[in-house]
Order: sequence, then C-alpha cells, then structure tokens
Amino acid sequence: MTTIGFIGLGIMGKPMATHLARAGHDLHISNASGAAAELKGLGARGHDSLSDLAAACEVVILMVPDTPEVESVLFGDDGVVAGLAPGTLVIDMSSIDPIATRDFAGRVRAAGGDYVDAPVSGGEVGAKAATLTIMAGGSAEGFARALPLFKVMGGNITHIGDVGAGQTCKVANQIIVALNIAAVGEALIFASKAGADPARVREALLGGFASSKVLEVHGERMIERNFDPGFRMDLHLKDLSLALQGAEALGLSLPQTAFCKQLLASAREAGEGDLDHSAMVRQLERLAGHSLAD
Amino acid sequence: MTTIGFIGLGIMGKPMATHLARAGHDLHISNASGAAAELKGLGARGHDSLSDLAAACEVVILMVPDTPEVESVLFGDDGVVAGLAPGTLVIDMSSIDPIATRDFAGRVRAAGGDYVDAPVSGGEVGAKAATLTIMAGGSAEGFARALPLFKVMGGNITHIGDVGAGQTCKVANQIIVALNIAAVGEALIFASKAGADPARVREALLGGFASSKVLEVHGERMIERNFDPGFRMDLHLKDLSLALQGAEALGLSLPQTAFCKQLLASAREAGEGDLDHSAMVRQLERLAGHSLAD
Repeated sequence: MTTIGFIGLGIMGKPMATHLARAGHDLHISNASGAAAELKGLGARGHDSLSDLAAACEVVILMVPDTPEVESVLFGDDGVVAGLAPGTLVIDMSSIDPIATRDFAGRVRAAGGDYVDAPVSGGEVGAKAATLTIMAGGSAEGFARALPLFKVMGGNITHIGDVGAGQTCKVANQIIVALNIAAVGEALIFASKAGADPARVREALLGGFASSKVLEVHGERMIERNFDPGFRMDLHLKDLSLALQGAEALGLSLPQTAFCKQLLASAREAGEGDLDHSAMVRQLERLAGHSLAD
Repeated sequence: MTTIGFIGLGIMGKPMATHLARAGHDLHISNASGAAAELKGLGARGHDSLSDLAAACEVVILMVPDTPEVESVLFGDDGVVAGLAPGTLVIDMSSIDPIATRDFAGRVRAAGGDYVDAPVSGGEVGAKAATLTIMAGGSAEGFARALPLFKVMGGNITHIGDVGAGQTCKVANQIIVALNIAAVGEALIFASKAGADPARVREALLGGFASSKVLEVHGERMIERNFDPGFRMDLHLKDLSLALQGAEALGLSLPQTAFCKQLLASAREAGEGDLDHSAMVRQLERLAGHSLAD
C-alpha cells in the first residue's frame, strides 16, 4: 500500500484515482476538487492545500490539462513542492511540454523529490477500463517505484528513457495519429471524387500496407460522418502546438506536423474544435472542394 | 480450365503466370518475353505477335510497368485489340492511371471485349506466395469471370466498383502508404532529436492509435537503416504522380500527397531512387537537420 496524492480528478483522473483507491492504496485528494465527495466515499482523505496534501504522501500524481497547470500545481504558493517530504516521487501523467518537463524535474529533485513523466494514451475509455498505454521517462529507480501503480491504471507500459522521454514519446504519438488521420482523409477524398465507394476502398486496404488503427477507427468515422468525440480537435491542436514549440526549441523542421496544425487551427476557427479529430477530413474536403458525403 | 494470354512476365508477372499454369490453365505468352523459355517448360504456348496471342485466348492479362505500356500493348500495331475475339476479357493488373483506364475499357468494349482493372499490392513476395491483395474494377460479370483466376494469384480480393475503381483504390493505397511513411519519419526524427530512443518509442506506440503496418515494417527499417528494396522510391514517385495527375484532372487538391511527391523527387535527384521507400526518412532528415542515425 502506497500513500498517493492525486491532483486533477477530471474525465481521465477520476477513474484513474478510483482504480488506485480500489486497489487498496491510501488516496489523498484536494477538498477543492469537484470529485472530492465521490472519492471520499471510497476512503480518500481530503486536504485544503496542495502543500498539505504533498506533505502527507509518498507519491504525488498529477493529471491536469497542460504545462502551465503542472507548473502552478508544483511550484505555486502552497503548491506541491512547498510541502514536499524528502524522497517523495512526483509522477506527472498529464500530456505537456517535454522540455518544460526536464526543468520541472530538476526543480523537484532540487527540493529533495524524484520525478517521472508518464503521459498516457487510450482516452476516457482506457482510463475507465484501466487499459491505458503509459509512456514513462525518468530514472530506473523512479520508474520501478511507479510501475506497480501504473499496472493498476494501464496495460501497455514502456520506460522510454530519462525524464522528458515519456512526454517526447506522447508527442510522437500525437504527430503520427494526426498525420495518419490526414493521410486517410486525403486518400478517401481522392477515391470518392474519382467515383469509387470510400467504404469499399477502406475495406480493401485494411489488410495491406496501408492498414492502420486510424484507417480502421477514424476512417470508419469519416465514412459514417460520426464526429462525436472521441478525442477533440482542440486537444489535438494543443498537442501539435507542443510538437512545433519543441521542434523550434530543438531547431527542427516538422513540415507535415505544421500543415496538420493549420488544419486543426482552421477547424477551431470554423467552430468545429469540439468535434472528434477524425473531422480533420472536413478541412481537407474544403481544400479539395469535394466531400465524402457528396 | 481457361485459355489465358499473359503479357508482362517481369518480377511480378512471372510468378503470377506460373501460378496460373500450375493451376492447370492453358497459358499463352509472347515469344519475345525473356521468361518465355521458362514458362514454356510449364506448358505455355508462345506467339510471335500480341494480336495472335489475343486471338487464341478467352482472357488476356496485362502486368506491365505504366499507362503508356498498357496503351501500346492493347492498341498498338498487332496489339491485343487487333486480334481480339468477341467476348474476350482483358484484365489489366498493372498499376496505371484510373482515368486512362476508363478510356481503355471503352475502346476494348467497342472492339467486342470486356475489361477489368485489377492492380495488386503485396510486391514480389506476395506474387510468389500467391497472397497478393487484388483491387478490382469492372462489371459484375467481368469480375465473376476473373475471380477464379484472382484466387490463384492472391488472397484479399475486393470488387471495388466499376471500371477504374481498382486503379483508384490502388492510388489511394499508395497515397496512404507514402504519407504514413512520412508521418512515422517525422515523428521518429522529433523523438530522436529530443533525446528519446526511436526504437523504444516505436515499440511503445505499436499497441495504440499510432500503430500501423508502416510503423511496424518501415519504422523498423528507418531505425535499422535498412533501405534495400522492398519497394523502390522511383516506383512510389510514379504512383504519386498518377495520384496528382488524377487529382488535377478531377479538379482536386491533395496537399500532403504533393509534399510527399517532392520528397520522393528530391530523393531521385539525390541518386537514391533505387532505395526502399522507407528511405523517405532521409529526405525528412535533411530538411530537419537531424538524422535518426546521429
């Protein structure tokens, strides 16, 4: 049994924390959380400040929206670091900037703690089913301490490398998913405009070298025009922004990622940011002047 | 048993024709073919002209490099159409222009024949193992006549739609494969430049939404720097040129396909056109100023 503080009890964090509580861990949460009452029903103990919460815990897990939230949770007044006991392990499971992650880890270590970044993929469904893919960065010791907790929340768990490598891997994941969605969209638009049935084309391609999880899942959504999220375009836009900020800091050119970011940004401008990311096909359809639905 | 003329006994065509002969069909070939002696050893009968060959056959199969070769085989002096008996089925298994395909089919039908386009994917390995993916366009009757022969040469066989739909599907396949290669390349370059091991990243991503046949096969080639073909970049350049010519004729914009065509064209200019198409990563590495091998 580990004493775990869990910060960020949203769509993803609440089921993840619930799994930890049900597995018998001693869960600590913020009284300010909207999900506090529900988790207290599972035995979680509430705290009025994040520094108090941190002071009570061996491990503190973060699952918050973006880089600035991680920074303020860790380093704000009465934040985690203000209460950190020596040897406490901070595990950031949010999806944030890999470069900022290294900075945060350095400051947590300077305060006597350890740091593992461990973003996930698999979405709300994976969080609820405890089948998340977890991509971790950190020391061998930090990863070994975190691993039993990861196993409660996820399935496919990989230690990629040093601190930041988990976030880097997550960014790579989001680059490939976005670009594969755009690839499938462009190919199906071509096939449809040339007079072939995109549903038959998708079916024929599923067995061969063009096959992908995206052709299977997002290709079907494009054909059925089912754009209920799923994963919202605005969140994918955030992830590609992270990729491009990172690339700029590294002096790297990512031309296709930049193009897909423009598609997602124009979707947001068109008021479609809340649709599933498979709706990137709608932006390509506007560029092409032809829709799969025509 | 069907009397089959097979034109184009190259790397793909020779094993395909061999399977048909071994399955007991009456195979007819051109005496001019380099593989003529070998196939005659399996009982094939040689002809001095394509019109004589066509006159002797119920079905004529083409497996030649590109659109101009199909046109000259069919409509040249002493070509297939010059000898075509009424009711003969022409099956073009080459990968060529979908729009030209419709024109060719119209001219073959006007001469009293029928026409099915049936390009394949799976390469030399699939041709030898008789596991080719076959994407067919044509009438229901034409497809029904061709199907028993397809089953001798391939596995995953789909009737996509009317004449041209097979070629359209093949173009869509080549668009997705090229764009997925470029997506995996860009993501692995980012991960590597940010300090993560691309091999670990690929491994972590194989289970999730970023997974694809390309991440599996071509991603491994990129990491191992194994660029022996496989499928040569010059051939993929031809396929994306077909896609973009088709798009232009249809009044369609395919921005990512255009970008990938530029990558393949600059690979050819760099003298790398004979490498496997996974070597597109090398062009992205030049743009990025960072190599996975660094």
